Amino acid sequence: MALLSHHLTLSLQRNLRHVASGCRYVSQTATKTVSEFEYDSPSMKTPVPGPRSKELTRQLGEIQNVGAINFFCNYEESRGNYLVDADGNRMLDLYTQISSVPLGYNHPALMKVLANPNNLSAFVNRPALGMLPPENFPEKLTESLLSIAPIGMTRVQTMACGSCSNENAFKAMFIWYKNKERGTNNPSPEEISSCMINQSPGSPDLSILSFMGAFHGRTLGCLATTHSKSIHKLDIPSLDWPIAPFPRLKYPLEEFVQENAQEEARCLEEVEDLIVKWRQKGKPVAGIVIEPIQAEGGDNHASPDFFIKLRSIARKHGCAFHVDEVQTGGGATGKFWAHEHWGTDDPADIVSFSKKMLTGGYYHTDEMQPDKGYRIFNTWMGDPSKNLLLSEVLNVIRRENLLEEVTRSGKALLQGLYELQSQYPHLLSRARGQGTFCAIDACNDVTRDSLLVKIRDKGILLGGCGEKSIRVRPALIFKEYHAHQFLNIFNDVLSEHK
Amino acid sequence: MALLSHHLTLSLQRNLRHVASGCRYVSQTATKTVSEFEYDSPSMKTPVPGPRSKELTRQLGEIQNVGAINFFCNYEESRGNYLVDADGNRMLDLYTQISSVPLGYNHPALMKVLANPNNLSAFVNRPALGMLPPENFPEKLTESLLSIAPIGMTRVQTMACGSCSNENAFKAMFIWYKNKERGTNNPSPEEISSCMINQSPGSPDLSILSFMGAFHGRTLGCLATTHSKSIHKLDIPSLDWPIAPFPRLKYPLEEFVQENAQEEARCLEEVEDLIVKWRQKGKPVAGIVIEPIQAEGGDNHASPDFFIKLRSIARKHGCAFHVDEVQTGGGATGKFWAHEHWGTDDPADIVSFSKKMLTGGYYHTDEMQPDKGYRIFNTWMGDPSKNLLLSEVLNVIRRENLLEEVTRSGKALLQGLYELQSQYPHLLSRARGQGTFCAIDACNDVTRDSLLVKIRDKGILLGGCGEKSIRVRPALIFKEYHAHQFLNIFNDVLSEHK
Repeated sequence: MALLSHHLTLSLQRNLRHVASGCRYVSQTATKTVSEFEYDSPSMKTPVPGPRSKELTRQLGEIQNVGAINFFCNYEESRGNYLVDADGNRMLDLYTQISSVPLGYNHPALMKVLANPNNLSAFVNRPALGMLPPENFPEKLTESLLSIAPIGMTRVQTMACGSCSNENAFKAMFIWYKNKERGTNNPSPEEISSCMINQSPGSPDLSILSFMGAFHGRTLGCLATTHSKSIHKLDIPSLDWPIAPFPRLKYPLEEFVQENAQEEARCLEEVEDLIVKWRQKGKPVAGIVIEPIQAEGGDNHASPDFFIKLRSIARKHGCAFHVDEVQTGGGATGKFWAHEHWGTDDPADIVSFSKKMLTGGYYHTDEMQPDKGYRIFNTWMGDPSKNLLLSEVLNVIRRENLLEEVTRSGKALLQGLYELQSQYPHLLSRARGQGTFCAIDACNDVTRDSLLVKIRDKGILLGGCGEKSIRVRPALIFKEYHAHQFLNIFNDVLSEHK
Repeated sequence: MALLSHHLTLSLQRNLRHVASGCRYVSQTATKTVSEFEYDSPSMKTPVPGPRSKELTRQLGEIQNVGAINFFCNYEESRGNYLVDADGNRMLDLYTQISSVPLGYNHPALMKVLANPNNLSAFVNRPALGMLPPENFPEKLTESLLSIAPIGMTRVQTMACGSCSNENAFKAMFIWYKNKERGTNNPSPEEISSCMINQSPGSPDLSILSFMGAFHGRTLGCLATTHSKSIHKLDIPSLDWPIAPFPRLKYPLEEFVQENAQEEARCLEEVEDLIVKWRQKGKPVAGIVIEPIQAEGGDNHASPDFFIKLRSIARKHGCAFHVDEVQTGGGATGKFWAHEHWGTDDPADIVSFSKKMLTGGYYHTDEMQPDKGYRIFNTWMGDPSKNLLLSEVLNVIRRENLLEEVTRSGKALLQGLYELQSQYPHLLSRARGQGTFCAIDACNDVTRDSLLVKIRDKGILLGGCGEKSIRVRPALIFKEYHAHQFLNIFNDVLSEHK
């Protein structure tokens, strides 16, 4: 049992080597496993944020709003799953920069990419990828992004970040929808002139259907599909687009199959109603966007059956189907894409990504490709230096069977969370997860926030999501013994909690 | 005279050293001047795109729409002002990846940044800057971005790209406007609940006033302020925001002062009318966004007087004033920011940047800072590795007095364009520019496109903009002799043009 495995964890740790600081590891072989290059445990010197972080926050406060600053980090000294802060505190990182670090800190394989002189040019010469790509671009796309393309998709468009990926995916769906409606890709003179002044028919009243609790980014288009927290949206103009309820399921899912299926049926019915209503309103739904697991909104899951039915509702009504895997993608669920758990060979028209993928972008079916150049375009269209790092991330994932590892450590993690919630039922409930993409609810937001602070002071970094959830988002190199390390400390915090 | 300076150019070139390929230059001192590390002239082997570029375009066509691909590049072999393509053609680059390369290709100083082991961590560990910045972040911001802050601005927010910079600048203006209107930063319960479903009052009907011909990016918010080409906007839903005419001036500006002043007065009057109209419509203008020189829209200039008056109209009506320096910023006009040419000590509330700055972002006055954390936020909030490169770019600009050099070579460039348009009045007109940020019009779009192809085949890479303009956007290391090299070849192309 996880909570009794302290001895096992300690014996494992005895074999781990504490790596001294410095740059020696750059030249070391990339086949080192995580236990050989990272630290063996958290080590806390001050409460977090410590005095140095506080002083730096004060300094940064002269330049920016620092309301969201947690603490300052020493990334040079951080290793693997352990993040070191400016006060020398070393924390086991289960939040990984909002789920965006695939292989932990200073992974030797990535350091080698930087140390290779042949790669320097990619970091120094950022091209306008959409016009003047480097000659190895088709080959690099093929061996990196396309090697992990979702089923049915042979096309990919890179972008700089998650918001740009979703914004451009929306645009691709709008363009596809209008060309379909027109029956031709030749717009009328009226369309061409009216779009220049933001008016229809050139700027049509089309919409994207999204879900309550969703998070798809914060630029204006994305923000109109984001409905997780008011702080993201307050005071920003938006668009009158339809918002469907996302199923509110009971956990563990396997114990509430019937009840959950009813809840999902209710949401699907509402989706169809909204599609019809918005068509009648003159704002037809060009696409539906959804996360396989709502992350920011509170780690809300739904069944494969729900997503498969939703996808067929989209098709029935002529809407494109966009699966946003910005947070779920990249391996944390134990499969490379969370939608693979649905077990369908036709998951979506568009799958967007960013975060752990290091580059933003989206895959799409042939149909979703814009008919002309410069329709989906910007100066950089991504960054080949990020593709280079991603290639190496994929090599490491394959070489070290990290998806299997994620499944294994995820099992230990979730099992431990189940045990904790049964031990502390007044504090915890609704443990849930897929791979290491796990969450558990506190009894209320105040308790959640207090637990997060207390466990951080004991060297565990976690994130919040939704109203009162705690989310666990470790890197792909998170092992079973890290899960036990976390669970033991979480147990301590819970047992001390008043 | 530029066109007769062939001999001078050649004699200069005799002293330049052709640098062989390979990575030797990494370890060389960063104080090398451009003439010591780059090539001495264009060298063409095939028409552009050549056979290898065509084959690679075919390959990439299996993955992406390639309608905007010009040719494929060999960035490893490119040096300074010279871009080498996949077929071994070497071109003098006066377009620099849509104006986004500050110091040309493979600048030794930037290669040194990458070769420094102390810097590797910044490239491998991308943080969530808004929550967990590296400990050197305040210091790095101070010594890089803040050292060149526009007058009156001590605050800066980094972002990943130009569109995200403008989107977030718009959001900052909306937040500022609503807090001002409310007289408090405590929203009502109704505002908090309505924003979650995209409805007012929480998602208010506010607008941004932009100008015809403007380009501010292609995400939905930015795109609602972009009005340069229909291909950018067609089929994408937009917002009913006011669009004012941008002055259509006669060039050279100093010869048409009176006439141009009248045109500018007409546009300013229209701005005020629109602000009043949109307020009456219930969609008040929270901010005005404008480029100091409309770039994508055709290199349209306006006088300092116009911008100063516009800024005071904004203030009079309680609108924020946002100057978009994504393309004009970073030194190409001979000053670090194009708005410095206005000679005012209160140019704007917000100045956004990207491209040559390598990182996106925006400067702002104290007033424009959001009242809480997480209001202007996303996962990455920029990229410290780009800040690191920018620091070194600024060092080189200072060490080599590149702004003075830009002024000098810009003068040669514009003088040469004046001479060419007087020599070929049936082909060219309206030469204009500031620093090396120059443009000239062809008699029509077909001629413009044909000239761009012909001059490219002779080894000069230029861009188009507006309906029939040619834009010149060299790197900051572009010298007078490069200007003469370009002008001589342009002269050849014009003299051969049928």
